[in-house]
Amino acid sequence: MSLNILVIGGVALGPKAAARAKRLLPDANITLIDQGTYISYGGCGIPYFVGGDVADMNGLRTTVAGVVRDEAFFSELKGVKAICHTRALSIDRKAKSVLVENTKTGEQSQMPYDKLVIATGSSPRIPPIPGTDLKNVTSVTCLEAAKAIQEQCAARQIGHAVIIGAGFIGLEMAVALADMWGIEVTVIEMMDHVLPAQLCSNFAQMAKKDLEDLGVHVLCGEAVKELKGDENGAVCQVVTNKRVIDADQVIFSIGVTPNDKIAAEAGILCHPRGGIMVNSHMQTSDPDIYAGGDVVVVRNLISGDFSFLPLGSMANRQGRVIGTNLGGGQATFEGVVGSWCVKLNEMYASGAGLTLRQAKAAGFDAIEVSVEGADKAHFYPGHTNASINLVVDQKSRRVLGVQGMSTDGSAIKARTDAVAALLQSSKPTLNEVSNLEVCYAPPFAGAMDIINAAANVADNVVSGIHKGISPDEFVKLWDERAENNYYFIDFRPEKAGKPIEERHPGEYLALALEDFNARKGEIPTDRPVAVVCNTGTRAFEAQLKMRELGIDSVNVEGGFIALRKRGDDEKF
Amino acid sequence: MSLNILVIGGVALGPKAAARAKRLLPDANITLIDQGTYISYGGCGIPYFVGGDVADMNGLRTTVAGVVRDEAFFSELKGVKAICHTRALSIDRKAKSVLVENTKTGEQSQMPYDKLVIATGSSPRIPPIPGTDLKNVTSVTCLEAAKAIQEQCAARQIGHAVIIGAGFIGLEMAVALADMWGIEVTVIEMMDHVLPAQLCSNFAQMAKKDLEDLGVHVLCGEAVKELKGDENGAVCQVVTNKRVIDADQVIFSIGVTPNDKIAAEAGILCHPRGGIMVNSHMQTSDPDIYAGGDVVVVRNLISGDFSFLPLGSMANRQGRVIGTNLGGGQATFEGVVGSWCVKLNEMYASGAGLTLRQAKAAGFDAIEVSVEGADKAHFYPGHTNASINLVVDQKSRRVLGVQGMSTDGSAIKARTDAVAALLQSSKPTLNEVSNLEVCYAPPFAGAMDIINAAANVADNVVSGIHKGISPDEFVKLWDERAENNYYFIDFRPEKAGKPIEERHPGEYLALALEDFNARKGEIPTDRPVAVVCNTGTRAFEAQLKMRELGIDSVNVEGGFIALRKRGDDEKF
Repeated sequence: MSLNILVIGGVALGPKAAARAKRLLPDANITLIDQGTYISYGGCGIPYFVGGDVADMNGLRTTVAGVVRDEAFFSELKGVKAICHTRALSIDRKAKSVLVENTKTGEQSQMPYDKLVIATGSSPRIPPIPGTDLKNVTSVTCLEAAKAIQEQCAARQIGHAVIIGAGFIGLEMAVALADMWGIEVTVIEMMDHVLPAQLCSNFAQMAKKDLEDLGVHVLCGEAVKELKGDENGAVCQVVTNKRVIDADQVIFSIGVTPNDKIAAEAGILCHPRGGIMVNSHMQTSDPDIYAGGDVVVVRNLISGDFSFLPLGSMANRQGRVIGTNLGGGQATFEGVVGSWCVKLNEMYASGAGLTLRQAKAAGFDAIEVSVEGADKAHFYPGHTNASINLVVDQKSRRVLGVQGMSTDGSAIKARTDAVAALLQSSKPTLNEVSNLEVCYAPPFAGAMDIINAAANVADNVVSGIHKGISPDEFVKLWDERAENNYYFIDFRPEKAGKPIEERHPGEYLALALEDFNARKGEIPTDRPVAVVCNTGTRAFEAQLKMRELGIDSVNVEGGFIALRKRGDDEKF
Repeated sequence: MSLNILVIGGVALGPKAAARAKRLLPDANITLIDQGTYISYGGCGIPYFVGGDVADMNGLRTTVAGVVRDEAFFSELKGVKAICHTRALSIDRKAKSVLVENTKTGEQSQMPYDKLVIATGSSPRIPPIPGTDLKNVTSVTCLEAAKAIQEQCAARQIGHAVIIGAGFIGLEMAVALADMWGIEVTVIEMMDHVLPAQLCSNFAQMAKKDLEDLGVHVLCGEAVKELKGDENGAVCQVVTNKRVIDADQVIFSIGVTPNDKIAAEAGILCHPRGGIMVNSHMQTSDPDIYAGGDVVVVRNLISGDFSFLPLGSMANRQGRVIGTNLGGGQATFEGVVGSWCVKLNEMYASGAGLTLRQAKAAGFDAIEVSVEGADKAHFYPGHTNASINLVVDQKSRRVLGVQGMSTDGSAIKARTDAVAALLQSSKPTLNEVSNLEVCYAPPFAGAMDIINAAANVADNVVSGIHKGISPDEFVKLWDERAENNYYFIDFRPEKAGKPIEERHPGEYLALALEDFNARKGEIPTDRPVAVVCNTGTRAFEAQLKMRELGIDSVNVEGGFIALRKRGDDEKF
């Protein structure tokens, strides 16, 4: 008798595992059930549908060849029997059978299996505050919700949208609503900056500026207490711990929780904080039951901790591993380094590994170093300035994480992915990233690629020869200069710094690096000194020369390019 | 007494090592000599200066801040005494002194050292044929030669340029001359395709088409026998083993040879085929003498062989390692995987690791697999189709090399660099590339990134479930269909293949994959079958369905997208 494979869940991992298994086992009976109407759609594309980049919702449901991935598609083209409107209620592991319910008729039946795949995904988190059940309060995690919002936008029924949570989907939706539809958008984030689990504070400031350039209001460190409704039961106000905001649309994007209930109830091992546990073959504690995608926890290869990574890309990769193993193979999925990327307004951001905060929480003696540099040879036309951040353990010089930010998405994807590959395959030190053999020609990179340069700067910082501070710290020194008595020296070509010097005599000196030897006598020796240039490089040279004179200083990483990206250049 | 460091050679590695050492050793006396007029210039940018992308030659000599890197720059800003027009003649290792000559006055003197860095670079290879000393015959490896050509272009003195050698510089110069100046350009390559040391035959065909689209003539498998001159001693004809070509400018780009003579004569260990041998600290067989850049041989981390990698990026990375070690550090350079990239006309190409030919020569049981796919989510606007090639050892499934080709340089840099990082840090198998955790969001990649997809296809090929052939092989099958009796089935949506079927009845069938079950009876069982679709994916599905019917077939990797990039679609 041929093998019976049942897959619960029809988005991303489920279809991938089913189709892969069918290719390897042409004789197997493979059934895929899903409680919704739509299956195998690109959920990550929802903000681009709402924002008009994807003109038709079916664009998210079609193959490269333009064929809609519906039940008939799976049955006829993939040899997988797909059944929508069918919810799995419970798993009887002893009988190897799943109790299912038709969501339209309520009819229940048993579906037997030899091998089962749990791909039930995750559900959006909704905070326990009053008003979440009002009209026009939603989470955009399924096509139906996306369609509803898009139709309201098109009908001009949304004047002010409030997005609660500054994660990926929240920010992507903020841009979509503000850019395409001219809607007034406010993003509220409880943590102290946007993308708190992904970005350093410095890059988060750049991201905030980029969103604000589009007119999006960004409120961080602010907690939503209540949603208030009008006489029709529709949301009309968002109440935070700091203010009241008018709103006729509220979107939650404060993360998701794994739909692991059916597994837990069947006695399958789950993590105390939620999510099914799987081994490297993606098997649950019941070897005949596989699970993957948003519903499982995965091992973070850097911290060693279990983590939760609800990304379509991981689901696809895990889906193939499960399909291979269902087909008798021995594919493995060893864990994750948490690679991510997101397009904001004009800026793209990406990263992999741990942030400084995460690294410290994992017990590392970590620091972070940021650099600014051209993504192509600086003499090659059309290059953009990329920002790169590295998180490094000081003692071992081990690289723990990378972040990038630029107006060219592929350029930072290149730098992030190369480090992600290292993080995934080894425990790289700064020497490995310094010598990372990324490809080079002037239209692609500088001869010293910015990712190599970032490691070099970090190496100098860890070695103590470069005393760098972040733009956050630099701005704080500047803002508090009346108290701290800091003196600021700008080593850019003189015309860049002179107007600032003229505005702030006695506090700020424009001293072109070329004139250092001639003018070094002007550098005060009786007060603390902070140095700056355009990217940090010239000021580092100056710092070394000053050290020979016995003058200590701190140099702002990324210089005025970083300050400008943050919107802080106007302070000077 | 302070340390005396002498650096021979003022481009790329030399200045980097000198400046780095000075930062670590402020008290050291560091001297850098060079026989030329210009130092520390971006030689890789020469084609972009000739091609007009870099308006002023000084653009290749300036820092990001716009300061020219000349002798004064190094003395004043870097604390390194730079001396031009000074050639090193010999090294007396016992006395620790270098005999040098002023190239203007002929005056000779001794320069003592405690530590020496040999950064003498390489010289262009000139073949032993008659006529290489004619006027307007050159190699474009220094700024002086670049300036001369650019001035001749501007004065419209070049009608037909012949470039001998289809390597990086040859192709970059071909594009620069044809695109900017409208010059008729012919490239002659002795090997059977362009970029023979970098590209697979399939991608080389795409590169050739891309150059031909600009009007460049590309002649492969052709050997230059002689250059003929006119009555003024200027070149006027290039004679090959197949034809005579009129030419008023000839540029050699058939590679370079390391300038290791001064080292070899001093008894420093060199490789029998040329190039100084160094350990992982970049020390020569004399521990007080370092060497790096174009003049050394490096270990290929994949094949284990010694190889020669004359790239500005490697020189910069090695320069920093040498500088660190001169300063008392312990930096290492372990070897290379040969990452490279180049911009052609509309196309960009990149790669790392071994080509199929190199892998076989190194003793691997290697195959190669090519795929075509979108570099962003296929529903996201503005994506381009990227071509990815993987070279894999069949037995161990170890990935040995990667190549990419696309109209978006950063997009293929991303995929190449991620694999390069793996190759550099481990011995990755297909499982590692399949699960490579590259970052994902629709504006950056597909949920199954094309680099993951390439590994998946290669896995299917190695496992025997996907029988792929290269476009080279497919075109051959098509060209010889009268003899081999092959039947061709096109599984794209019917309107794509129908016109071809109508032109070739009995040889070609348009059978949309959706209609497979209804029309499977039309597939012949008595003759060999080759299948095709747009990228290879649909035809692979069809291949599996045909196998269930007992019908074997071969599927062309990359489908019509690859055929179109090669210019072969018009054959059908």
